Amino acid sequence: MSIDLKPLGDRLIVRAIEEEQTTASGLVLPDTAKEKPQRGEVLAAGDGRWDDEGENRIPLDVAVGDVVLYSKYGGTEIKLDGEDLLVLRESDVLAKVAS
Amino acid sequence: MSIDLKPLGDRLIVRAIEEEQTTASGLVLPDTAKEKPQRGEVLAAGDGRWDDEGENRIPLDVAVGDVVLYSKYGGTEIKLDGEDLLVLRESDVLAKVAS
Amino acid sequence: MSIDLKPLGDRLIVRAIEEEQTTASGLVLPDTAKEKPQRGEVLAAGDGRWDDEGENRIPLDVAVGDVVLYSKYGGTEIKLDGEDLLVLRESDVLAKVAS
Amino acid sequence: MSIDLKPLGDRLIVRAIEEEQTTASGLVLPDTAKEKPQRGEVLAAGDGRWDDEGENRIPLDVAVGDVVLYSKYGGTEIKLDGEDLLVLRESDVLAKVAS
Amino acid sequence: MSIDLKPLGDRLIVRAIEEEQTTASGLVLPDTAKEKPQRGEVLAAGDGRWDDEGENRIPLDVAVGDVVLYSKYGGTEIKLDGEDLLVLRESDVLAKVAS
Amino acid sequence: MSIDLKPLGDRLIVRAIEEEQTTASGLVLPDTAKEKPQRGEVLAAGDGRWDDEGENRIPLDVAVGDVVLYSKYGGTEIKLDGEDLLVLRESDVLAKVAS
Amino acid sequence: MSIDLKPLGDRLIVRAIEEEQTTASGLVLPDTAKEKPQRGEVLAAGDGRWDDEGENRIPLDVAVGDVVLYSKYGGTEIKLDGEDLLVLRESDVLAKVAS
Repeated sequence: MSIDLKPLGDRLIVRAIEEEQTTASGLVLPDTAKEKPQRGEVLAAGDGRWDDEGENRIPLDVAVGDVVLYSKYGGTEIKLDGEDLLVLRESDVLAKVAS
Repeated sequence: MSIDLKPLGDRLIVRAIEEEQTTASGLVLPDTAKEKPQRGEVLAAGDGRWDDEGENRIPLDVAVGDVVLYSKYGGTEIKLDGEDLLVLRESDVLAKVAS
Repeated sequence: MSIDLKPLGDRLIVRAIEEEQTTASGLVLPDTAKEKPQRGEVLAAGDGRWDDEGENRIPLDVAVGDVVLYSKYGGTEIKLDGEDLLVLRESDVLAKVAS
Repeated sequence: MSIDLKPLGDRLIVRAIEEEQTTASGLVLPDTAKEKPQRGEVLAAGDGRWDDEGENRIPLDVAVGDVVLYSKYGGTEIKLDGEDLLVLRESDVLAKVAS
Repeated sequence: MSIDLKPLGDRLIVRAIEEEQTTASGLVLPDTAKEKPQRGEVLAAGDGRWDDEGENRIPLDVAVGDVVLYSKYGGTEIKLDGEDLLVLRESDVLAKVAS
Repeated sequence: MSIDLKPLGDRLIVRAIEEEQTTASGLVLPDTAKEKPQRGEVLAAGDGRWDDEGENRIPLDVAVGDVVLYSKYGGTEIKLDGEDLLVLRESDVLAKVAS
Repeated sequence: MSIDLKPLGDRLIVRAIEEEQTTASGLVLPDTAKEKPQRGEVLAAGDGRWDDEGENRIPLDVAVGDVVLYSKYGGTEIKLDGEDLLVLRESDVLAKVAS
């Protein structure tokens, strides 16, 4: 999927990956029993914010296509073409899935 | 549209773009059902704030004419020639629409 | 008008410009209905604050004679020769009127 | 154990080491009587966060395989393959066990 | 007047100048009706605080003998030889009277 | 005494020195009458935290074996081999006993 | 008086100088009527704190033997050889008595 939004600075646009919420016994758990930090795919990434002299950008460690682990309560929800996405700062990302 | 105001530092003057608020069924939604972050057009931009040595300005990543996504609750409302505009800092802009 | 006060650092002394508060129907609006940010003329400006090494001053982007847009709730009110003026920091100025 | 998560910046993924909670008299203590800071093994470590110029990363003093002492109340709990792990910042680590 | 105290860093010792508080009608106003920021004479000034490398001092823009405008609620009151004086930081000074 | 813990960054591990709490009249004071800041021996010290460029460590002014004066309410208590110790940051140390 | 404590960084050890609290009429004032900032003699001084690169120490402007004016409510009280002393940071000192 390609989107027409370019995040500014150290921001990312992320689409949540719905984890299967089936327990060992086969029951589907209600929403409040889901784990907190969740996985998502990075759809767009900024170019990094400027350093204090305005000469270099601080590089991002996350790229488009990465799958990242982030806290569900960080960021700002946006709706794009009817889909719920999240705008995060890179500092809200805990880890990425090693490829 | 050209305006006679020059924002200072990392500030922008933005005019909100009213999104069509018609649902699939053709109903027009009342105001409180609108999405939160909203699109706007950048009418004027500062030259960037000075770095800590007063030697360079930190460049802005947003230019006049860009369409940006921003939080409706950031910034200061001003009225110019009878029109409601918003003065934002660039750090309040989430993303810009790729051209 | 020339005044005998030199603001320190990044401060400005500003005299508010009373906007005409007559509506289209010719009614004069009471004070609480006035717009919030307001215009003022810069009567005096500091030389800029020192950088962290004490070697350069951070230049001001506003000069004496500029007309600026600022929030009415920033700054400190002073009375000079019976006139109400405002001492602002440059960071409280939103924009200046392009000349 | 190897995991497929790469922490970002100065973050670590740690698995708690359950200390034996048997007292001198042979009683097993209930959970609330356990000591507060606890030991854990570092399963994954970030590459360090970027310095303010975006040129170097600040090196981490902790490596994969280290046993560290940390406060149980720092960090974010995650569940990986059914196991409870913790994402910490290096600054939340008090000490490491000298090898 | 010369005093035997040397303020540290960016501090000043200031003696308030009592403004005439007589109104147009000749009434002397009680203390609570006085204007807030007030004028004072600088009796002693520090040498400026050290920069972050401990190599230079940040120069002061105020010197002994200057008359300054400052907020009555900044600073620390001291009594010297029976006289009430004020210890201010230079950043609490709004402006100085141009000579 | 040697311990197998290496504090991170600017942290120290300290063992409190119990002062004799006998008054002039020979009475032993109860615990709440003891003086607040207390002396302790430094059992282990970090290598100092990294500077902002990740190039040098900020040196510590305290070394293993030093006796230091510190506030009893700073730091984190740990238990090591049945003994109560304290993990402090160097900035929590007030002074060291000159040798 | 020489003491066996070396303050760390930008700290000082100060012994308060009891001012004569006799009024013009010869009455001795009770303790709560004393002036707030008070004078003290510097008994020991740190070597200054390290700069952000860990290369230089920021020099202190106060030396052992100086008489300083400081706020009674800053600092930490310690008892040394039965005498009440105060550990201050240099930034809590308002001024020193010129010699």
